[in-house]
Amino acid sequence: MVAEMRKLGEHLELCSINTATLGFQAPIETVIDEIARAGFGGIAPWRREIEGGSIEAIATRIRDAGLKVNAYCRSTYLPANSRPAFDKNVADNISALTDASVLGAETFTMVVGSLPEGSKDLALARAQVADATAQLLKHAHKVGVKLSLEPLHPVYAADRSCITLLSEALDICDSINDPMLGVCIDAYHVWWDPNLLRDIARAKDRIFNFHVSDWLMPTRDVLNDRGMMGDGIIDLPGLRGMIEAASYNGFIETEIFSAENWWKRPIAEILGVVKERLSRST
Amino acid sequence: MVAEMRKLGEHLELCSINTATLGFQAPIETVIDEIARAGFGGIAPWRREIEGGSIEAIATRIRDAGLKVNAYCRSTYLPANSRPAFDKNVADNISALTDASVLGAETFTMVVGSLPEGSKDLALARAQVADATAQLLKHAHKVGVKLSLEPLHPVYAADRSCITLLSEALDICDSINDPMLGVCIDAYHVWWDPNLLRDIARAKDRIFNFHVSDWLMPTRDVLNDRGMMGDGIIDLPGLRGMIEAASYNGFIETEIFSAENWWKRPIAEILGVVKERLSRST
Repeated sequence: MVAEMRKLGEHLELCSINTATLGFQAPIETVIDEIARAGFGGIAPWRREIEGGSIEAIATRIRDAGLKVNAYCRSTYLPANSRPAFDKNVADNISALTDASVLGAETFTMVVGSLPEGSKDLALARAQVADATAQLLKHAHKVGVKLSLEPLHPVYAADRSCITLLSEALDICDSINDPMLGVCIDAYHVWWDPNLLRDIARAKDRIFNFHVSDWLMPTRDVLNDRGMMGDGIIDLPGLRGMIEAASYNGFIETEIFSAENWWKRPIAEILGVVKERLSRST
Repeated sequence: MVAEMRKLGEHLELCSINTATLGFQAPIETVIDEIARAGFGGIAPWRREIEGGSIEAIATRIRDAGLKVNAYCRSTYLPANSRPAFDKNVADNISALTDASVLGAETFTMVVGSLPEGSKDLALARAQVADATAQLLKHAHKVGVKLSLEPLHPVYAADRSCITLLSEALDICDSINDPMLGVCIDAYHVWWDPNLLRDIARAKDRIFNFHVSDWLMPTRDVLNDRGMMGDGIIDLPGLRGMIEAASYNGFIETEIFSAENWWKRPIAEILGVVKERLSRST
């Protein structure tokens, strides 16, 4: 299957860098320039780099560098203990969606959150996510930015995402049934799922994003010890094959949280290794 | 639902202590005596406490203390890189099953293992698990000990268990279809699964074991920082309700890995808190 696939190292215009991969060690302007200089075609910035600055100016810089913003990271967590707190979460995301539009982002990455303080009710959190997503879609249509639900690995089910299985994210998509709503498939979050092949085939054109990194053995920290592609146990070419067989032809986005390793290296070095590993191990 | 349920604090004869909960800080003889003195009805010992000793003498001591061995922990990991290594894994488990029988254990807890060194092939590991399980069942029948497949939380999918979803364990049960094969449902491993209600109802009388503990927020170490019932975010009464509604009436087994907290306390203190929390929070 690998032999028939696009050689990513020779097609960096298909590849995007999620800026978290670079450890937030430089201002966004520098990050934009370095990613473009390394030859990548896309960038997925985080709100912490954008909010409070001149979003128009950043958008211009990204465009002038020749980069596409394939995604904007990420949603404010949705579930809440009270109606006002829930409404505020929705409002925060509406504001971020407007920013995403100014940036020219194709999609808004939805990391949905989970149990609010003191709650043990996952079903309620999930219902709040579906409710909020339906509300946000109205604004998504208005500003022309797609919503991309990202199921996270179940190790984050208590705090970061009550949505863990790809099938669950697709169930929400089915129930809302809107072309502006799809899923973000992150290798790190879904590689272990025994129903992956079935659910990727089911997802079809609702796959809006594909993230790569690797699961290290051992993993010292489930949040910030992700591996570079090829350094762990995920069959990335196999996974990419499934996703491209489902007709996905969007960006391959590298997203690596690595506090003790990659984030300590210079940006140019990280980007060089990503490039090589996209070619050899993805 | 809680109100209609058996009050565990008043029915300790329904409750078993997995000896890992006590941190392996005393010889098995002491552990047996303390568990019996605290009023529990069952014990689930580990091979490290049994192998190399006189198994008949330990079995006698457990019986004389009035305890039932509801489970024996646990299988040697099954997947392997070579046929001889695979056969050795199966042989190790056959030997452990014989010991389980001498102990009078009702079930043998199957933690199945995952990717052998260098492999990224989860499908192969899963096929090896199904193959080995079918082989082990022959011996299970011979010695009269049931096999209990335990799906583990996906955070362990790379090393400890390629079987993560309850539905996956049930698929293996369905494909082999043998009354001596069932599942072990551990709250810590399955609480996050969106299909839990569906799959517990599907499991019915194939639920051989039910483990309780809690998922702490935050969790400092996904292996050895489990919480005491009531200290985390799992809706344990809700989960117990589902399991008992599926007609499970076996032991409630407490299994808590807690290197930095509970394991540092005296055995009698741990057992006292377990008793209270079974009553209040399970």
